[in-house]
Amino acid sequence: MKETLRRRISDLRAGRESERDFLAFLQNFPFSNETHIKLDFHRKLRRGIPEVIFGQGKSAEQLQRIVKKFIEVGEDILITRIDRERFAALSKDFPGLRYHAAARIITSLRQPRIKNKGKILVLSAGASDEKVAEEAYVSSLYLGNRTDREYDVGVACLARILSLQKKLNRYTVIIAVAGMEGALPSVVAGLTSTPIIAVPTSVGYGANFGGLSALLSMLNSCAGGISVVNIDNGFGAAYQATLINQKGSR
Amino acid sequence: MKETLRRRISDLRAGRESERDFLAFLQNFPFSNETHIKLDFHRKLRRGIPEVIFGQGKSAEQLQRIVKKFIEVGEDILITRIDRERFAALSKDFPGLRYHAAARIITSLRQPRIKNKGKILVLSAGASDEKVAEEAYVSSLYLGNRTDREYDVGVACLARILSLQKKLNRYTVIIAVAGMEGALPSVVAGLTSTPIIAVPTSVGYGANFGGLSALLSMLNSCAGGISVVNIDNGFGAAYQATLINQKGSR
Amino acid sequence: MKETLRRRISDLRAGRESERDFLAFLQNFPFSNETHIKLDFHRKLRRGIPEVIFGQGKSAEQLQRIVKKFIEVGEDILITRIDRERFAALSKDFPGLRYHAAARIITSLRQPRIKNKGKILVLSAGASDEKVAEEAYVSSLYLGNRTDREYDVGVACLARILSLQKKLNRYTVIIAVAGMEGALPSVVAGLTSTPIIAVPTSVGYGANFGGLSALLSMLNSCAGGISVVNIDNGFGAAYQATLINQKGSR
Amino acid sequence: MKETLRRRISDLRAGRESERDFLAFLQNFPFSNETHIKLDFHRKLRRGIPEVIFGQGKSAEQLQRIVKKFIEVGEDILITRIDRERFAALSKDFPGLRYHAAARIITSLRQPRIKNKGKILVLSAGASDEKVAEEAYVSSLYLGNRTDREYDVGVACLARILSLQKKLNRYTVIIAVAGMEGALPSVVAGLTSTPIIAVPTSVGYGANFGGLSALLSMLNSCAGGISVVNIDNGFGAAYQATLINQKGSR
Amino acid sequence: MKETLRRRISDLRAGRESERDFLAFLQNFPFSNETHIKLDFHRKLRRGIPEVIFGQGKSAEQLQRIVKKFIEVGEDILITRIDRERFAALSKDFPGLRYHAAARIITSLRQPRIKNKGKILVLSAGASDEKVAEEAYVSSLYLGNRTDREYDVGVACLARILSLQKKLNRYTVIIAVAGMEGALPSVVAGLTSTPIIAVPTSVGYGANFGGLSALLSMLNSCAGGISVVNIDNGFGAAYQATLINQKGSR
Amino acid sequence: MKETLRRRISDLRAGRESERDFLAFLQNFPFSNETHIKLDFHRKLRRGIPEVIFGQGKSAEQLQRIVKKFIEVGEDILITRIDRERFAALSKDFPGLRYHAAARIITSLRQPRIKNKGKILVLSAGASDEKVAEEAYVSSLYLGNRTDREYDVGVACLARILSLQKKLNRYTVIIAVAGMEGALPSVVAGLTSTPIIAVPTSVGYGANFGGLSALLSMLNSCAGGISVVNIDNGFGAAYQATLINQKGSR
Amino acid sequence: MKETLRRRISDLRAGRESERDFLAFLQNFPFSNETHIKLDFHRKLRRGIPEVIFGQGKSAEQLQRIVKKFIEVGEDILITRIDRERFAALSKDFPGLRYHAAARIITSLRQPRIKNKGKILVLSAGASDEKVAEEAYVSSLYLGNRTDREYDVGVACLARILSLQKKLNRYTVIIAVAGMEGALPSVVAGLTSTPIIAVPTSVGYGANFGGLSALLSMLNSCAGGISVVNIDNGFGAAYQATLINQKGSR
Amino acid sequence: MKETLRRRISDLRAGRESERDFLAFLQNFPFSNETHIKLDFHRKLRRGIPEVIFGQGKSAEQLQRIVKKFIEVGEDILITRIDRERFAALSKDFPGLRYHAAARIITSLRQPRIKNKGKILVLSAGASDEKVAEEAYVSSLYLGNRTDREYDVGVACLARILSLQKKLNRYTVIIAVAGMEGALPSVVAGLTSTPIIAVPTSVGYGANFGGLSALLSMLNSCAGGISVVNIDNGFGAAYQATLINQKGSR
Repeated sequence: MKETLRRRISDLRAGRESERDFLAFLQNFPFSNETHIKLDFHRKLRRGIPEVIFGQGKSAEQLQRIVKKFIEVGEDILITRIDRERFAALSKDFPGLRYHAAARIITSLRQPRIKNKGKILVLSAGASDEKVAEEAYVSSLYLGNRTDREYDVGVACLARILSLQKKLNRYTVIIAVAGMEGALPSVVAGLTSTPIIAVPTSVGYGANFGGLSALLSMLNSCAGGISVVNIDNGFGAAYQATLINQKGSR
Repeated sequence: MKETLRRRISDLRAGRESERDFLAFLQNFPFSNETHIKLDFHRKLRRGIPEVIFGQGKSAEQLQRIVKKFIEVGEDILITRIDRERFAALSKDFPGLRYHAAARIITSLRQPRIKNKGKILVLSAGASDEKVAEEAYVSSLYLGNRTDREYDVGVACLARILSLQKKLNRYTVIIAVAGMEGALPSVVAGLTSTPIIAVPTSVGYGANFGGLSALLSMLNSCAGGISVVNIDNGFGAAYQATLINQKGSR
Repeated sequence: MKETLRRRISDLRAGRESERDFLAFLQNFPFSNETHIKLDFHRKLRRGIPEVIFGQGKSAEQLQRIVKKFIEVGEDILITRIDRERFAALSKDFPGLRYHAAARIITSLRQPRIKNKGKILVLSAGASDEKVAEEAYVSSLYLGNRTDREYDVGVACLARILSLQKKLNRYTVIIAVAGMEGALPSVVAGLTSTPIIAVPTSVGYGANFGGLSALLSMLNSCAGGISVVNIDNGFGAAYQATLINQKGSR
Repeated sequence: MKETLRRRISDLRAGRESERDFLAFLQNFPFSNETHIKLDFHRKLRRGIPEVIFGQGKSAEQLQRIVKKFIEVGEDILITRIDRERFAALSKDFPGLRYHAAARIITSLRQPRIKNKGKILVLSAGASDEKVAEEAYVSSLYLGNRTDREYDVGVACLARILSLQKKLNRYTVIIAVAGMEGALPSVVAGLTSTPIIAVPTSVGYGANFGGLSALLSMLNSCAGGISVVNIDNGFGAAYQATLINQKGSR
Repeated sequence: MKETLRRRISDLRAGRESERDFLAFLQNFPFSNETHIKLDFHRKLRRGIPEVIFGQGKSAEQLQRIVKKFIEVGEDILITRIDRERFAALSKDFPGLRYHAAARIITSLRQPRIKNKGKILVLSAGASDEKVAEEAYVSSLYLGNRTDREYDVGVACLARILSLQKKLNRYTVIIAVAGMEGALPSVVAGLTSTPIIAVPTSVGYGANFGGLSALLSMLNSCAGGISVVNIDNGFGAAYQATLINQKGSR
Repeated sequence: MKETLRRRISDLRAGRESERDFLAFLQNFPFSNETHIKLDFHRKLRRGIPEVIFGQGKSAEQLQRIVKKFIEVGEDILITRIDRERFAALSKDFPGLRYHAAARIITSLRQPRIKNKGKILVLSAGASDEKVAEEAYVSSLYLGNRTDREYDVGVACLARILSLQKKLNRYTVIIAVAGMEGALPSVVAGLTSTPIIAVPTSVGYGANFGGLSALLSMLNSCAGGISVVNIDNGFGAAYQATLINQKGSR
Repeated sequence: MKETLRRRISDLRAGRESERDFLAFLQNFPFSNETHIKLDFHRKLRRGIPEVIFGQGKSAEQLQRIVKKFIEVGEDILITRIDRERFAALSKDFPGLRYHAAARIITSLRQPRIKNKGKILVLSAGASDEKVAEEAYVSSLYLGNRTDREYDVGVACLARILSLQKKLNRYTVIIAVAGMEGALPSVVAGLTSTPIIAVPTSVGYGANFGGLSALLSMLNSCAGGISVVNIDNGFGAAYQATLINQKGSR
Repeated sequence: MKETLRRRISDLRAGRESERDFLAFLQNFPFSNETHIKLDFHRKLRRGIPEVIFGQGKSAEQLQRIVKKFIEVGEDILITRIDRERFAALSKDFPGLRYHAAARIITSLRQPRIKNKGKILVLSAGASDEKVAEEAYVSSLYLGNRTDREYDVGVACLARILSLQKKLNRYTVIIAVAGMEGALPSVVAGLTSTPIIAVPTSVGYGANFGGLSALLSMLNSCAGGISVVNIDNGFGAAYQATLINQKGSR
């Protein structure tokens, strides 16, 4: 898509395109203006990150229309919150898709291109937080970051996280995923100078109240260097980590 | 008070007191039946722990009447949640009282008698949790337990709590006091086989919601061996620790 | 890692390694370091209680891998929050498992070995609290405690709980399970000097808000000697009771 | 409007207006139509209970205007939620007022007239609930009911409430006031066939959340025969008890 | 069961039974002491209302055992919160049962015996509140009260409720059932001197929060004479209304 | 009742009844007084908007009875919150119905008659808010308003909403539908002098708490000119917009 | 201010001002760009309503700076949420200010100019809601609307609001202010076709939770034609009513 | 302990201790081990950011002891949440302190040393958010970052924030401070590829619930690239921004 833009800019400079035509083109450029769903292909220009599709709550037909459009304009595909059934339906029409089951994500088949310099580490507290941690891991990878992962390193057995202490400072961002009491980010923050994006998960029961417990823990952490995204929002953490990594990469 | 009871029991056995009189006496024994405030002196017999006065919300006159009654029947004094002003007022009439400022507690002057075998450790996460930790510490001491304290050992600097690890197992109960993200009990529980009474505090601001954050953290702890009392309830933790210590002491 | 362990064990047996060196080694052998799930076999050394598997949210395959590992290292099995379907799947491969239907727990077939001196009593308020009470009862038994149970003794009919009053003091810990208004622990606490672990349940409807009502009741109890675990956390109560019983047993 | 009323009253007395016409007129004379505060003197006709003044948040001048109006039309005075300072201000202009300090209520000096047949009992769980209990007691008395009170009979010492069991059935309504865990109404309901109006109080701290704890307890009571009014609403309980007593008195 | 009691009482009077034996008998009388479910047949003596079975969450087998026991001792059957499927299962073994579909209640076939003098009126605000209103209506009838019902009289069309105004005072108790904004009881209370038991329902969506909206409305009503039971608790309202009606009937 | 109505209508036509008498009669003819469901046909007279059927929670039979009644009295049909299954069932008996799938609404087949002068604009923030936006759009149209819609104009891509700025002032009311952070109405309010009815949706997850996040955003908007309806209440917004449009149309 | 704009526009057309200068002027026009407080004088152009100052939380000096700026550019003054003390301080420097004590509002001395055609009615439920109602009333008047008020017309005495029924339809918008159970807007909506802006107030106590009770009531109203603003936001209601009235006035 | 440190430092200088040994020693010198307050001077080594003092809730004496210690070891001073009164008290003993009134922060007098390469921008939505924004601004500056600020750029007047659009990408991190509906970060995120740390403030009233409204908005933002810190936690945002800036600076 950037190609089209570049071509028209050089046309403009070369006098092959009038200023007025170019302006009109730009006005139609920011988003694909379908009646009910407007895709923001302009975002890649503005933010360095392509439009990503939030799969939850979208019907099979909605997804089909969107994927078709993405393929037409040559965009990379990244669909989050998608179950195996809807993947199966999509992959019939679009064979070039890959399903990351643990992460519940669909991407294009091709390997992600690493664009940013630093590295990102995804930590998870318990085995049940894996879904959210994988959403963060796969997203981070496909948004162009070297990404590592260490799961099941919760605070009930400190030896696990302490054994990682030395390497924590090597990362540009740490994504720390935890449910229940959500103490992992607080403990990790005390061990490193790497900024931490904390992801509370809805893992737990009873007075967990759907992740509220972990969310409040993380917001109230006594250790500095933690900022928080929405409950279960592994993708959002990867997105934020990518923006930070981009900044450090320039 | 137990003295009175013992005397009448021996009178009963010796035939100096009729069964019917004794029963009537017992009916009037459980509590001092004033019109508006009924004191439960019987509790010491039932629970091994004397009646303790919750000072919050009680007027100076109410306290005066209660202390007078306690002194009449020879009960030990332990008043919690009491500010220096009301202490000053009381101490005019009852000089044999001592004020523990940090704990906001009034006790009798005499040294507490250690009745139970085991030891109790009071931990606090931050400097601001000191008030609640001291309430637990002084209460635990005056309820008859050998008691140690280590404050400001929160998880943002793990070295502090790790430096205590070896001695944690020596205690019968650990009282862990923490506000903000309330992670201390979870981390301590991973380091010891001593049962932990967790006390959330209302220390914090914003999404702390008056201690809710720490309370939920503690209830949702991924580490076993933690049970929780009300927000800021240092005395309640000491009470529970005392009952546990009594059991282990028999 | 298992290899290392095996080799050093045979070295130990062959006298090629001193006992002291081996213990030191064990302190650095904290967990089974699989990629995604780290089992904490070290916990038994640290806390006197084996690793227990929280079944909720774990897939059949995850459970299979974990049980296989436990059997390999000779660990006792205790899986909580497990439905009959997943038990049926597991028991095909591992015939030595037993399902406790009311408690939704899987254990090994062999009788639990009683390791601790004191006794634990599980009380429940209503017939609907039975699931949680049974989780506490079976867990307590399999964690090595002599355990009794008395169900359906809620406060709407005081005669029931009063008829038990005499024997309450004989127990080292009482686990009191209650939903709805959650008043049982408060009433029991007034009758005994045994410490009480209160378990709120999500039984109820309307303004119960998933167990919040019972949870708040228990945290705010006017009677001392109560500490609280998470809503529906029967296992957590048994775990805490076991730690207390261990202390009293030394 | 007052003019109309006076004229028609003198017409009535002079025989110029029939009684039936006058009553019909009164049905259309619902309230004292001042600009900003409309008093509902008609309520006594509709509900058998006079207009009562909720003092909280009303300025001294507002109260003065209202009391003046009440005295003009010969209404009994009952002002709730009123502190001693505003009473002092009012009593200068209206010497015929009496302040019930514990209840924070102002009434007329004259003894309340007992209009209803049955008796009402006000129970309170703790000494700190006295303010609310007294609001209920004084209101119940001044609304025309024979009223007894027994305070400090909370569930932490069951002997207190059990000692009252025999007489509970003698009352037409029991008002049970309790803060903290709010268990008193549940226990009382199990002991009697008298309907209970439960009043949660905001007494407590921490996870009490301003009375929410007791409120939820009472709404979720496992014992039937309890209905609940707002937190701290001692007057509301007395009002409801009066309506029930009126019904039984016909 | 009452038969047994009566026989022993006459034996007692006739000297055929010693006072001590009778007291011992009474102590064992209060409840059917099965291992896991204790039925409180004594309640009828204490409260004038038989044990009622809360069907929700009880398995088919649990219900079968309970119904069998009730039939053995000659108790009336009243099971609430029961779906048609479990009724079908039960009615195979116990043909003498009747299903009230709208109320989701099972009763015995025989007509309810009216024991109390006054009448009860069940009002509901909207068509969707019918389930809860019917639970109140059928329960009230089978607990021995003359009972009327008027549904769909919500405040959005005041003419409906105003058309009933004249007859409201004839009832001993009004049960007002409403979801959504829960305004019905406030409006009705302004029109009558009959005490109102308000039942919030979980009918609604969005900021209704499962009935919280109606519950808070009712607790905060500006009109006196309203007390509240739990969300959707139609039976609880009927129970309370029955106790009030019993009082007025003596 | 219908008979009475018919007779008086024919009397009216025949001149046997004066217009004034008939109108007076109508004021006393408020609703169709079936036993359990009372339809308020009078509303059209009072409010200018016909009775609309809230489909959620109504059984197929309830709907059938209501639709039959509407057709008998010649009312327009507008049923909200209705799934395709119940539509299919209804359309067998009543072929003249039309299903608006995206809006989950049933209407009569005939084109809506535009009665009001102004125009209404329905905006939605994201593709997932479409259901609620369509409920508002179809309702607004069928209640008699010229209505436009622009979806997927959320604040993450300001260009979309800025491109609409010029035409925003042309509308009489804007209905702004948004889930998640609910910022759309605040941004739109800053761009126009048209009053905005904001509709929070339950679209989102985690700390969205079923739409609470968007609801609070809208209530706390720093921009004036926004008022809010219940979460997901697209119909309610259309209703309010219609009343405003009616006022401007006179 | 519009004068300045008009003059420069005519200068522009007449060639007395260059296009570039005009654009630069416009860039500095929208808001007074002080370092810390930016005033949006442009708003009057965009929205037809002048910038209004929210006084709460602003220091005396901040207010002084703002008022000075307003007077310089000839803007009308309207400051909300301002206590008498800060008014006294301001009025020393700016004598042309008027304090509306009940509304806690400061305005200029001059009479408000009525710009809009329709009329607005402010209703309040109870005497304690007067503060918020007055904020709405004075704001509505000073924003250019003919405005009436009727206070203390709550639903506990329906006669009050029914006596107003006939004139309700005459208004373009009704602002209905209510605390406690917040039922007033629901009842009024059933009586009129005028759109209602509902303002919940924080008046109440206990389960009122700072106005949450009234807020939820209003959002869940069963009657259509109600939209809601923030708790205690009398000004916000007046603002919304003004925008609606402007639309109807064109 | 200070003695040890001093001795080893002089040993180091004198060549009696190797650099490597000294560093190893330092790793074991984690904190100043006073009885009740443990300062973590080691943090600077671990995290690159010095210990900062949270002033809220600390008494004047506590602060005095801490400042004295900081000055002894040559630490920079940064005390947050401190009012002018406590500053006045401190500055008597420590004249080298500076009070930043708007930020409620105390620092040393000397200019902050800029250590990091990138720049940070602090945005605030409204004039009332200034306190929190200043806390972020001063903290960011004193933690070693080039820092700009733009206040009062909320979304109600989009022109303000749009006028900044071009320069947003120049910053390494943007700190966006907003209360009320908290929409600012969502709008800014749509305009830039700079990562945003969002700070909700407690500014607002009513359904703001102490900042909950803005907090939820920010967590649920539909725009990626936002992570959130606690309500009013300006310092926490600056801390996180500093860690990110450090990473980018290496």
